[in-house]
Amino acid sequence: MTTHLTQVQNWLNTEGIDVAYFSDFHSISYLTGFESDPIERILALFVFPQNDPFIFAPALEVQAVRATGWQYPVYGYQDSENPFALIAEHIRETTAHTTRWAVEQQQLTLNKANALQTAFPDLKFTADLSPIIERMRLIKTPDEIAKMHAAGRDADLAFQYGFDALRTGITELSVQAELEYKLKMNGVTGMSFDTMVQFGPHAADPHGATNDTKLKGGQMALFDLGTIYDGYVSDATRTVAFNSVSFRQRDIYQLVLKAQREAQAAVKPGITTGSLDKIARDIITEGGFGDFFIHRLGHGLGSSVHESLQIAAGNDVILEPGMTFSIEPGIYIPGDLGIRIEDSVVVTESGSESFTHTSKELLIID
Amino acid sequence: MTTHLTQVQNWLNTEGIDVAYFSDFHSISYLTGFESDPIERILALFVFPQNDPFIFAPALEVQAVRATGWQYPVYGYQDSENPFALIAEHIRETTAHTTRWAVEQQQLTLNKANALQTAFPDLKFTADLSPIIERMRLIKTPDEIAKMHAAGRDADLAFQYGFDALRTGITELSVQAELEYKLKMNGVTGMSFDTMVQFGPHAADPHGATNDTKLKGGQMALFDLGTIYDGYVSDATRTVAFNSVSFRQRDIYQLVLKAQREAQAAVKPGITTGSLDKIARDIITEGGFGDFFIHRLGHGLGSSVHESLQIAAGNDVILEPGMTFSIEPGIYIPGDLGIRIEDSVVVTESGSESFTHTSKELLIID
Repeated sequence: MTTHLTQVQNWLNTEGIDVAYFSDFHSISYLTGFESDPIERILALFVFPQNDPFIFAPALEVQAVRATGWQYPVYGYQDSENPFALIAEHIRETTAHTTRWAVEQQQLTLNKANALQTAFPDLKFTADLSPIIERMRLIKTPDEIAKMHAAGRDADLAFQYGFDALRTGITELSVQAELEYKLKMNGVTGMSFDTMVQFGPHAADPHGATNDTKLKGGQMALFDLGTIYDGYVSDATRTVAFNSVSFRQRDIYQLVLKAQREAQAAVKPGITTGSLDKIARDIITEGGFGDFFIHRLGHGLGSSVHESLQIAAGNDVILEPGMTFSIEPGIYIPGDLGIRIEDSVVVTESGSESFTHTSKELLIID
Repeated sequence: MTTHLTQVQNWLNTEGIDVAYFSDFHSISYLTGFESDPIERILALFVFPQNDPFIFAPALEVQAVRATGWQYPVYGYQDSENPFALIAEHIRETTAHTTRWAVEQQQLTLNKANALQTAFPDLKFTADLSPIIERMRLIKTPDEIAKMHAAGRDADLAFQYGFDALRTGITELSVQAELEYKLKMNGVTGMSFDTMVQFGPHAADPHGATNDTKLKGGQMALFDLGTIYDGYVSDATRTVAFNSVSFRQRDIYQLVLKAQREAQAAVKPGITTGSLDKIARDIITEGGFGDFFIHRLGHGLGSSVHESLQIAAGNDVILEPGMTFSIEPGIYIPGDLGIRIEDSVVVTESGSESFTHTSKELLIID
């Protein structure tokens, strides 16, 4: 059994839980090494305090589960079968104790909870697995950190391709296409989210999608992107000036950069996530732009691009070595401009290391 | 109020529901015109039998909601605030009746259900909104169908780019990169799922991801892809031979093609989804390959690439004009080959129309 699965089993014994049901495919990947997004089909991992765990998967995934070296049972189901009836049978074959359940309450949907309740009328949702698995995923192993450094190197490459693509009149979508094409031709297997390329005032919408906005001289271009390396992601942002830069653009850029750098420099074991947010926010507020920094400073990441850690006000998680998260202050002035600078980092014994190394000094592309 | 929102409100009045809570961003997009995936943040639409509906969104999305022309309240929340405490306040400001709730049980997670139950101790999850919204989304309007035809035209273009990219020794990833690059340069804003390009035996894994497998003469190449046009998707598959084709490849191809065509030809109002699956499955079984067709015949699609309709055995939904789904039989022989052929169609008064028109005759690329 993997170390992670053994940890879960120990926890079940300590808490007196009969059945643990993992339904988030990221959790299943983390615990078993089998990664697949079942979309609307059912993929489940059941772990028991004494008996062997099993995976329940769509029939067309069963071979792939076995190919990972999974040494416990894997049960498949056809699209024409009732998955929860089969799950109930397999659980009853495995154990006589089915009262006290732990499920991923942040992931399990109400209809699936109801289906379980129907199959096991005595079932009690005794404990929430979400914080347990989140806590396990929070501290990365050296192997996980090495993959995130590799993903970061690909993100650095992506910035270079993106900067190279900028020219007057080109659309955001064309720059996105060129950048992703060159990455894929260099063996990058996928992006961790839709690459954002935003020009001028369009960048003032921090959630706006890349579209056919055309680049003009004197505008700034924002790139927020991430790549996937062997199941681990990168996430970074750079904003560059095109042809020229105004004093106002430069001043706002320097303010964001100061906030980003000072927050990043403060990262070390023992600091709280909330205090990092405050460092960046205070700098931007003192600069007069506090109302235009409208999101948290950052978020956890690892095998998915948004993990549980929140770098936000009121959040008092104490940093520990091996935690990984983004630091991404921004200033967004509607109709005018948007500037965001982001590195993702890992907490080390004495500070932090960034996964990306593209310069954060203001770059003017000609 | 949009027609769709009025339909929801009428249903609430008929069923005596106090509060309807939509949490699936696709549903919210369908009902309000505001489309955004909030990832782990909260985006919610609340509809009431008498009072005005409201949207609850991350603060950084509020402007974007207003920009769609939404004429009812939109309430934002900061990352540092407790969203469910705010939601409870806004609901209490809107209505005094908060006992009988309808939620999307296929989408709402247990922890959110628990948060609501804590905020409203008398709350009963009286009704499931999932089938209600699914039923509304099942029958497409002429405007939705027009967008799906446009998405289909882009998928046809994608096949052409993909076929053009094939050459000895090229990797699946490079073909994927070339195809997507050319699409984006032609203004296609996004793919509806990760483009699958699979060569030779790799295509025998119907869920395997595109990787660095290299193309050899005499292999077949499978393309499963979809594009997004104004919020609506395409989904189609073609399998082509490279350089040459064996008698065995040709025979299996013709069997899949016959299954695909006969199922597609049978589509008309009044037929059940299960009977379509049977038509295709019987042909493949009679041909001796029934054990190698290991998934349902198809699935609904529209504003997302997997909607509620299942074209599967034991499924007795009766087809009606305006329903849209994929028809995608396949034969997968591990270590050997995989062949799938797929069109997505809309049911018309007298039969069906396909969204894609790339020839399904066996094509040998030189």
